[in-house]
Amino acid sequence: MSKNLTKRSEDYSKWYNELVVKADLAENSGVRGCMVIKPYGFAIWEKMQAELDRMFKETGHENAYFPLFIPKSYFSKEASHVDGFAKECAVVTHYRLKNDADGKIVVDEDAKLEEELIVRPTSETIIWDTYRKWVQSYRDLPLLINQWANVVRWEMRTRLFLRTAEFLWQEGHTAHATKQEAVAEAEQMQGVYANFAENFMAMPVIKGTKTESERFAGALETYTIEALMQDGKALQAGTSHFLGQNFAKAFDVKFTSKEGKQEYVWATSWGVSTRLMGALVMTHSDDNGLVLPPKLAPIQVVIVPIYRNDEQFQVVSEKAKQIMTDLRSKGVSVKFDDRDTHKPGWKFAEYELKGVPLRIAMGPRDIENGTVELARRDTLTKEIVKQDTIVDVVEKLLIEIQESLFQKAIDFRKEHITEVNSFDEFKEVLETKSGFISAHWDGTTETEDKIKELTKATIRCIPIDTQEEEGVCIFTGKPSIKRVLFAKAY
Amino acid sequence: MSKNLTKRSEDYSKWYNELVVKADLAENSGVRGCMVIKPYGFAIWEKMQAELDRMFKETGHENAYFPLFIPKSYFSKEASHVDGFAKECAVVTHYRLKNDADGKIVVDEDAKLEEELIVRPTSETIIWDTYRKWVQSYRDLPLLINQWANVVRWEMRTRLFLRTAEFLWQEGHTAHATKQEAVAEAEQMQGVYANFAENFMAMPVIKGTKTESERFAGALETYTIEALMQDGKALQAGTSHFLGQNFAKAFDVKFTSKEGKQEYVWATSWGVSTRLMGALVMTHSDDNGLVLPPKLAPIQVVIVPIYRNDEQFQVVSEKAKQIMTDLRSKGVSVKFDDRDTHKPGWKFAEYELKGVPLRIAMGPRDIENGTVELARRDTLTKEIVKQDTIVDVVEKLLIEIQESLFQKAIDFRKEHITEVNSFDEFKEVLETKSGFISAHWDGTTETEDKIKELTKATIRCIPIDTQEEEGVCIFTGKPSIKRVLFAKAY
Repeated sequence: MSKNLTKRSEDYSKWYNELVVKADLAENSGVRGCMVIKPYGFAIWEKMQAELDRMFKETGHENAYFPLFIPKSYFSKEASHVDGFAKECAVVTHYRLKNDADGKIVVDEDAKLEEELIVRPTSETIIWDTYRKWVQSYRDLPLLINQWANVVRWEMRTRLFLRTAEFLWQEGHTAHATKQEAVAEAEQMQGVYANFAENFMAMPVIKGTKTESERFAGALETYTIEALMQDGKALQAGTSHFLGQNFAKAFDVKFTSKEGKQEYVWATSWGVSTRLMGALVMTHSDDNGLVLPPKLAPIQVVIVPIYRNDEQFQVVSEKAKQIMTDLRSKGVSVKFDDRDTHKPGWKFAEYELKGVPLRIAMGPRDIENGTVELARRDTLTKEIVKQDTIVDVVEKLLIEIQESLFQKAIDFRKEHITEVNSFDEFKEVLETKSGFISAHWDGTTETEDKIKELTKATIRCIPIDTQEEEGVCIFTGKPSIKRVLFAKAY
Repeated sequence: MSKNLTKRSEDYSKWYNELVVKADLAENSGVRGCMVIKPYGFAIWEKMQAELDRMFKETGHENAYFPLFIPKSYFSKEASHVDGFAKECAVVTHYRLKNDADGKIVVDEDAKLEEELIVRPTSETIIWDTYRKWVQSYRDLPLLINQWANVVRWEMRTRLFLRTAEFLWQEGHTAHATKQEAVAEAEQMQGVYANFAENFMAMPVIKGTKTESERFAGALETYTIEALMQDGKALQAGTSHFLGQNFAKAFDVKFTSKEGKQEYVWATSWGVSTRLMGALVMTHSDDNGLVLPPKLAPIQVVIVPIYRNDEQFQVVSEKAKQIMTDLRSKGVSVKFDDRDTHKPGWKFAEYELKGVPLRIAMGPRDIENGTVELARRDTLTKEIVKQDTIVDVVEKLLIEIQESLFQKAIDFRKEHITEVNSFDEFKEVLETKSGFISAHWDGTTETEDKIKELTKATIRCIPIDTQEEEGVCIFTGKPSIKRVLFAKAY
């Protein structure tokens, strides 16, 4: 298998686009901006879904399902929301096709909808229209609901996983009796996302809040987790929003409090999407292909038999299957690739491309010696391991690889957070080293916009753990008490 | 909790509609024909999904994801398919909204799509357009792929779960090198569906093939599983289609065979949907509410504490939690409902309505006696059980209830399959007893259509296990060698 993968140092963007296709994660479809997620890519997404779903349920959430379509009028009810979302979206206007006089299939103009339907870009409006019926009393609160769904945002420039017209995601929508509870929920879900990113994706993230101009349309506060890709660009990996009473007021969702008063409900929403697949690829992978953290790898260990004839194949297969059984009994996912249509060298390259964390190769000499050859994807190192210790070695290595990938990403990020104290320094770091830039900012949208216009860098977040510190805005020289993180971003 | 559920004997249809809403399974949304699946209903669907997904994977299938939108022209490529599907569907014509002169939100006529997009009613066309790129050689076959997705069919008369404009389903789409393999796959998946229906839903089904006029649009053979509801109407619960080379030819999907020849690929597709939720409700439930088979019940056992004061509550709670822990350790899903906002009687009625298979009630006297009261939802019987045997008793009862529900449904169906030998008899059975009617038919679409026109009964299937038998068509008197099953159907 020839990889012909562009090197990251040559063209990072091209490397990414090629890798996603060649590693069988996804490809463009015949529909503008919509991707096909291929089985191998989808298997990784399923692993992500399973862990996230478990975490949501452990924090008391239930899944439900709301309609794909949203009546146009619903969007108008929350003013800032419509500006943020309803503009670039897929609009359903008709409900029937027909054959025209020439037998061609055309839209039936007699089947025009009275009110256009929007394919959901996010579901706040349809969900809050439903919550009005579900909430009467404080006893009905909190509502802690999540939905796994597809959404559509009509993006002009699309890239597989990172920005597609249709994407898959989960969206949590919760309703609470008090502001305090809603804020706590939004913060909790930011924590769940950070936990998932760091402990499963092995991707370190910075927790922070968004500035006003980067907030979700309709939110009072947006909590974000921000990751750093290998090319020094940031990626917003998940957001959680405190929505105040905006949607409750727009959709008239009130409850009777314990004290018998009618009050508006407090809301949150939070989501992560198939964008995380792009983040996973760009955090760990190398010029040989994907590198997957063991916890999210659909295949954790592949066994490739080496043989010259049927007899050797039989002997090697028998031992390989035994090792496979032993590993599986420990919960390790193993594939034994006994296809005779491809040579071992081809298989080695294929599993390297697909990021399988560990590869076991076994030939007749290994059988004689009671050994196997064990290759590690992340370091590309090989070692000879005794067959009778292989299960222990594999189990330990899978943990070690998971930790090592995380540590490597942490080290990379550490090297790529730079404190600057002048706008010249800011621009220089952005051009040369890139990464996160920690700088003082005067707190105004005006300054933020100007910096963005001049440098394409945006404020990724106001980090949660930032210490207050006297300083002056790098752009205006006005006083500032906190550094924020700037970066160019995906 | 007042149920106020219409009795089945009074109005079965009304009973169903009320039950689905009152048991918190689903409700109509503000969008015509689209439902909201509520958390309790969705939890049942998730259990169905998990079992089906496991079965698909065990038979070698992988999941993937294909676009929601299908370009209009794709439908035209397979002639019978477009007639069956492309007519009643949601059509996306624009990709932007804007504010008009009055500030109202309107469709932006400048953002009209060059080619309209259809919201998928089923995905054969977009998937076979993709498979063309994936299949070159016999080595690439078979392709065994499934997708969990939402689909839209613009139905004029909708009913929750049974017929909705948007519904959730899975659709398998496989590609094979030979006709024989494709037929075997279609038959295998019919078997998987039958296994799921009978062993998890406790719903007996008849396996058969569809007549030409009832076949899937584009199929050469449609394999179906047909269930019988309590009102004597049949429900098509799942279908698996042998598609021949129709889609391969329409989308030019060829492969190089082992012998080096270019050949068209053979196809199947198969699906079940949230319609199964309706089937589940109508197979087992009664005038008191839902009855759920234990294997699909989100809550298998609910524990309700009985107490008059805090002290009693503490004592009862402690024991209840211990029982909950013991049951959970055996994999039983248990809820301890310790809410002080509702009385025990209200809770009893609620869990009856929601079909929880077993209810444990415990009060101070039970603590003294070392007993609990155990109530069974399907039979509405109660017994006193020693606390130290409760885990065993519950485990056995859950198995017994699952089997008993299935047996009851089998018995009901047996009573409702009637052999008839004349059209008068046919009409009489249809009017009085309903159910499946086993009758000779001359094999023509013409006769089938006329019978449908006169009686609303359709041929549900040609059962697989039917013996050949000389006879005459009940309608035309022409010779027939096989009985087929007629019924009125959902």
